[in-house]
Amino acid sequence: MAQKPSIAKGTRDFGPEEVSKRNYIISTIKSHFEVFGFMPIETPSFENSETLMGKYGDEGDRLIFKILNSGDYLSKVGDDLYAKKDANALTAKISEKALRYDLTVPFARYVVMHQNEIELPFKRYQVQPVWRADRPQKGRFREFYQCDADVVGSTSLWQEVEFIQLYDNVFSSLGVEGVTIKLNNRKILSGIAEVIGAKDKLIDFTVALDKLDKIGEVGVKKEMLDKGITESAIEKLQPLFSFTGSNTLKLESLASMLTASQEGLKGVEELRFILTNIEDLGLKISNLDLDVTLARGLNYYTGAIIEVAAPDTVKIGSIGGGGRYDDLTGIFGLKNVSGVGISFGLDRIYLVLEELGLFPPSVTTTTEVLFLNFGQNEALYGLKAVTSLRENGVKAELYPDDAKMKKQMNYANKRGIPFVVLAGESEMKEGIYTLKDMASGMQDRLNLTDLIAKFKTSSTV
Amino acid sequence: MAQKPSIAKGTRDFGPEEVSKRNYIISTIKSHFEVFGFMPIETPSFENSETLMGKYGDEGDRLIFKILNSGDYLSKVGDDLYAKKDANALTAKISEKALRYDLTVPFARYVVMHQNEIELPFKRYQVQPVWRADRPQKGRFREFYQCDADVVGSTSLWQEVEFIQLYDNVFSSLGVEGVTIKLNNRKILSGIAEVIGAKDKLIDFTVALDKLDKIGEVGVKKEMLDKGITESAIEKLQPLFSFTGSNTLKLESLASMLTASQEGLKGVEELRFILTNIEDLGLKISNLDLDVTLARGLNYYTGAIIEVAAPDTVKIGSIGGGGRYDDLTGIFGLKNVSGVGISFGLDRIYLVLEELGLFPPSVTTTTEVLFLNFGQNEALYGLKAVTSLRENGVKAELYPDDAKMKKQMNYANKRGIPFVVLAGESEMKEGIYTLKDMASGMQDRLNLTDLIAKFKTSSTV
Repeated sequence: MAQKPSIAKGTRDFGPEEVSKRNYIISTIKSHFEVFGFMPIETPSFENSETLMGKYGDEGDRLIFKILNSGDYLSKVGDDLYAKKDANALTAKISEKALRYDLTVPFARYVVMHQNEIELPFKRYQVQPVWRADRPQKGRFREFYQCDADVVGSTSLWQEVEFIQLYDNVFSSLGVEGVTIKLNNRKILSGIAEVIGAKDKLIDFTVALDKLDKIGEVGVKKEMLDKGITESAIEKLQPLFSFTGSNTLKLESLASMLTASQEGLKGVEELRFILTNIEDLGLKISNLDLDVTLARGLNYYTGAIIEVAAPDTVKIGSIGGGGRYDDLTGIFGLKNVSGVGISFGLDRIYLVLEELGLFPPSVTTTTEVLFLNFGQNEALYGLKAVTSLRENGVKAELYPDDAKMKKQMNYANKRGIPFVVLAGESEMKEGIYTLKDMASGMQDRLNLTDLIAKFKTSSTV
Repeated sequence: MAQKPSIAKGTRDFGPEEVSKRNYIISTIKSHFEVFGFMPIETPSFENSETLMGKYGDEGDRLIFKILNSGDYLSKVGDDLYAKKDANALTAKISEKALRYDLTVPFARYVVMHQNEIELPFKRYQVQPVWRADRPQKGRFREFYQCDADVVGSTSLWQEVEFIQLYDNVFSSLGVEGVTIKLNNRKILSGIAEVIGAKDKLIDFTVALDKLDKIGEVGVKKEMLDKGITESAIEKLQPLFSFTGSNTLKLESLASMLTASQEGLKGVEELRFILTNIEDLGLKISNLDLDVTLARGLNYYTGAIIEVAAPDTVKIGSIGGGGRYDDLTGIFGLKNVSGVGISFGLDRIYLVLEELGLFPPSVTTTTEVLFLNFGQNEALYGLKAVTSLRENGVKAELYPDDAKMKKQMNYANKRGIPFVVLAGESEMKEGIYTLKDMASGMQDRLNLTDLIAKFKTSSTV
């Protein structure tokens, strides 16, 4: 009995068109990474479990895919422990490796292990898949690519400035007009919590504030109350709920709100540096918006917090994000290395380009010309021309079988190949090729030189 | 206590130079795949276990990395089975997914699942990592890339002809002169086994013959005897041990040896088709050698068997291989789909290019110019020029910190950045930039237009 084929839950096959479109996005991102001086690295798909476990919180630990040890993996498990039949306790004994959950922790491991080979500040980019045992749902997969660029080893705010330029450049190249780059700073959030007297409730406070978009002012206030933030504290937040106007106005409002918090004022100063320099340098297509509700993985970030929202016309949310995190490599024993980085959300960017019709048609061009096959001698005659065309960088194919003409023409049609060449006995005698335009039906009789000239592009291989 | 970072056994980190060199090989291979009309697909890193298990023999099954089910994976295991503490029996209950072991079986699954979307013959290429729980040793890794091109849905021998051209083109582009493309056919091996009366010992016979290189004529004959092949049968093999001369002579010798085997003669005919057409078309840099000892995964191949040997000066063995396999998709329920394909060995090709010094220097070019940082105003002045350079496709960087000049120059040196720009107060006043050539020490004072002209290449992003 043949097996019915299936694909693992939450994973995807990518056909030729999808691969080409994904590669178009990836290569656009990579080319900007390189022009900005980032260098590529790659880390293994799986790491020793201790490298990953405990780095992403309890929920993260659960979502990490663990790899079963090879061979007789039960032989090392003591009978007492085995008898408990406790999956949590058993896992550590039968699994020593796990699939990469993100690119940041492996990068931290890389920096520490290769610290003698690299120069700080080290600017690296990494475009590789990661795996998470999330419940699959629309737009959420168990295998997906991350496209990250990070700098470690410098606290300079020029890097935040450059990352905003980088986002702007990439989305400009992709033609996505009207993205909004949102900017915040953890020090602002800490400062606000401090001045309203809720420093011990920083997480609850920011989690609630982060929901302003979704649940509105009333909802946010209710959640804060529920979490034990006092009414008088919440009252002091009032300016944040009508936080509009230019970034300059927002900065002024924050500065006056945060006069009593050193940390908060430091945050204002950092934001001012970034905003004024970006204003001076200019952006191509993006809006830059100071958004005090932006929190993302707050525990993670220590300075700037950045997020990119798709244009308003596309309801898809964030298509990228990042920020600054001090002491990235501390967990692996290298102290005082500050990091800052951003990530591009490949799957969502794909959906944006698809929805806005922004993929250039040339991304998915297939074979340019198919030579029909009329038998052994004719095929050899055709393959000689195919060989020459390929040498000139032209995507050319010979239909492999001496099948009925109708079948071969059908094949060209269904593949979307724009030209076919018919070369039978009469063409061979004259040393020419009959080129047929599949769209117009027009035919042309050309010698090899003219045939090559017709297709030759600048891209020879 | 900080954790000492480690990398999983048999896996590798790739630094910027290695990634660039690997990508150079991969993109050369891909560009030829595309010019030959192959289209890219990608399949998930893990598959449902039943897709992979039983497809690679017992040894293969052992070497497949299994992924532990998420959550309380022991809850589904019956107490009776659990009590046996038998790893083999337990695996099927606690693991339902496994990492890709090669690209061929996932491709077969892909073809069957997507048969209504693709046109046969379907030419696909796939460049992705695979994982094997092999004992790591020099040159053998647990994670490595495969670069495969296959055609399914046609039995035409023109495909074998084209694959030989494809190998020749790729290695020619990479500058690897003197590769040898070895060619054999399973029908030849079957035919020989038949005419010597050892048809039932085909596997033993070919496994022994495949070792001729390593253990010589005497060794091969001894192994055959040990496996129960009769002396009189072995005597009939004598021509194979002095199998030299042109491919044409070898073909004649085989044809006369195999007159009594229909299958053998079919093999001769197939080889003749390939060899004569390749002779007519010509090869750029490769030798094509009919090698009757070539077997590879014999159980797998049903027609042509192909292998590429590195130039004699590099002792590294096979750098690619492939062949024809009938009924690739039969295991998943789609009968009568013949396949033929080849694979490139990325890691070994890398070693060959390294040993022969064939990586072009441009492969690993880093940032072209570093702007030194003399403080906030100077940095902004510099970043404006950096921004313009980047817009012209030039890899440019601003040193992020206002550090000591010596430290910044050191950084440029260690990174191998060929030019630095010094722009302080006097340059700002004049609106110019001082460009310093790190190798010669020569300095030049340029305005922005001239600076851009100096670096601008044809590749703008």
